[in-house]
Amino acid sequence: MNTQPKFAVIGGGSWATAIVKMLCENVDQIAWYMRSVYALEHLKLHKHNPNYLSSVAFNINQLQLTNDINQAIKDADYVIFAIPSAFLSTELEKMTEDLKDKVVFSAIKGIVPESSLIVGEHFHTKYSIPYENIGVITGPCHAEEVALERLSYLTIACGDMEKAKIVATNLSSYYIKTKTSDDIVGTEYAAVLKNIYSIAAGIAHGLGYGDNFQAVLMSNAIREMKRFIKQVHRMKRNINNSAYLGDLLVTGYSVFSRNRMFGNMIGKGYTVKSAQMEMSMVAEGYYATKSAWALNEEYQAKTPILDAVYQVLYEGKEAKKVFKKLTEKLD
Amino acid sequence: MNTQPKFAVIGGGSWATAIVKMLCENVDQIAWYMRSVYALEHLKLHKHNPNYLSSVAFNINQLQLTNDINQAIKDADYVIFAIPSAFLSTELEKMTEDLKDKVVFSAIKGIVPESSLIVGEHFHTKYSIPYENIGVITGPCHAEEVALERLSYLTIACGDMEKAKIVATNLSSYYIKTKTSDDIVGTEYAAVLKNIYSIAAGIAHGLGYGDNFQAVLMSNAIREMKRFIKQVHRMKRNINNSAYLGDLLVTGYSVFSRNRMFGNMIGKGYTVKSAQMEMSMVAEGYYATKSAWALNEEYQAKTPILDAVYQVLYEGKEAKKVFKKLTEKLD
Repeated sequence: MNTQPKFAVIGGGSWATAIVKMLCENVDQIAWYMRSVYALEHLKLHKHNPNYLSSVAFNINQLQLTNDINQAIKDADYVIFAIPSAFLSTELEKMTEDLKDKVVFSAIKGIVPESSLIVGEHFHTKYSIPYENIGVITGPCHAEEVALERLSYLTIACGDMEKAKIVATNLSSYYIKTKTSDDIVGTEYAAVLKNIYSIAAGIAHGLGYGDNFQAVLMSNAIREMKRFIKQVHRMKRNINNSAYLGDLLVTGYSVFSRNRMFGNMIGKGYTVKSAQMEMSMVAEGYYATKSAWALNEEYQAKTPILDAVYQVLYEGKEAKKVFKKLTEKLD
Repeated sequence: MNTQPKFAVIGGGSWATAIVKMLCENVDQIAWYMRSVYALEHLKLHKHNPNYLSSVAFNINQLQLTNDINQAIKDADYVIFAIPSAFLSTELEKMTEDLKDKVVFSAIKGIVPESSLIVGEHFHTKYSIPYENIGVITGPCHAEEVALERLSYLTIACGDMEKAKIVATNLSSYYIKTKTSDDIVGTEYAAVLKNIYSIAAGIAHGLGYGDNFQAVLMSNAIREMKRFIKQVHRMKRNINNSAYLGDLLVTGYSVFSRNRMFGNMIGKGYTVKSAQMEMSMVAEGYYATKSAWALNEEYQAKTPILDAVYQVLYEGKEAKKVFKKLTEKLD
């Protein structure tokens, strides 16, 4: 029998906490890095993350808790990053350990602001990690439902399908079903774009559009997502698979999504700045909108929804007017 | 300039009321048939339908209100049927007027229990109406949001695109956008199947499955819908258009959908009979499940969700066990 691969999880938020919980169902020892010393001490003492998914009880003997990222990575075969994309560069700067011989999985679902790259591309370009050592963990999956052990399906994509299978196996349990995919670029872009569409759904809701329009918006969003991803990375994929359409739906229809909430505030009349100040969590879609829009200057996919969100967030245009125009472009 | 076509609307429910409201934005005279004399008298006196969308005020001078179906149909060029499919045969039996020279549009979204046919096929087969005189009006569209004049998009399908355009034009207004389609079979099956998937969503919710699973279920449902419709009527269609995916989403994600509500009760432990007795409205999906399942005995599309709903509704199998098995078949 093979020895168990060693996993490190980077991040102290709700999705990182959910991933550690899933791994704990299968793996004896997991290295878990987070910045907050307070949260680490609380975890050691009370067996709960005080800030996120605080109902989840951990067996502390399974965890190598540390606030030193190098300590966490050192012995790991698989390093899973689950921090907001806006903080990734700062964390990576702390690294002295070499990532070159590690398998790096992204559970980030964002675009790295400094490089305008999705996380997989960022690791490939900036850290020379080959694509067969890069992977993506994607939903549809609210972390909160993992905490409740409600049945959820994950897609694990990797350039090397063997590695995808290893991660999938170690995340699977009676409440987690997994499938594997070789579409690392497409699944990661889907996870990024869905946050933008979720902002659009929020803006529409804030402006007073109803469920009928929301359904039209989502139906247009999945077609737009298909066009965009096809331009970026052409391969055979069924855009209606759970990793694409399912992930869009769980976010677009969730009242708990921070992206949707952010959009909703803007639709209701908050400025972008005041909406950001009002929210204590980062809305990934905010950064993603800028990067995806810039990227599409090159690719020229027809993306009326992305364009509308961009105009509202970055060109100071009035949401009401922009969305009125958008309604003419949807069908 | 052409003279205005004459419209008759058959039905007194919420969707019929919404259609009359939409037509009233464009048409001077509309014949409106409903069974209830009480509702008719109330309409004449108070300008509101007392039972459905009662907030909508009508200009009574635009309406030829009648409880005689033949009276309504007599002078009409376009007859729009918007009654539950279970009552269609009874209503049609009252007809002495010939439908042969009329254009018949279905806004029914169900399968006729007596013939196991979708409404368009029923009219074609039983009343010898050619397909160029048969059409479908489909959403995504909750009638309640039409009442509120919230922006909604309709798809108008007809064998003869000129007739689709005429109906589309007469339904359009500042809150209704329309598109036309020649896929009368596909759009009608989509409208039928979405009710079945909405029952499935309700059962899952009633059983305690969460939003993550719901997204997977809908993502599988649209793929299943595509397979089914492709078997029934093969043509080039984008299943992610609003008439298919949008219609599925507005129903599957609506807590007001009577199909979802019906499923939810069954998921929570009601028997099929008691759930039906508890609800005063007809859940179209109940009849649709039987007919679609029977039809698929011939077509043999892979339809795990339809099969699961059928087993629960018609084979007396336990929802919990059936859905546990279903979760193994989804991805």
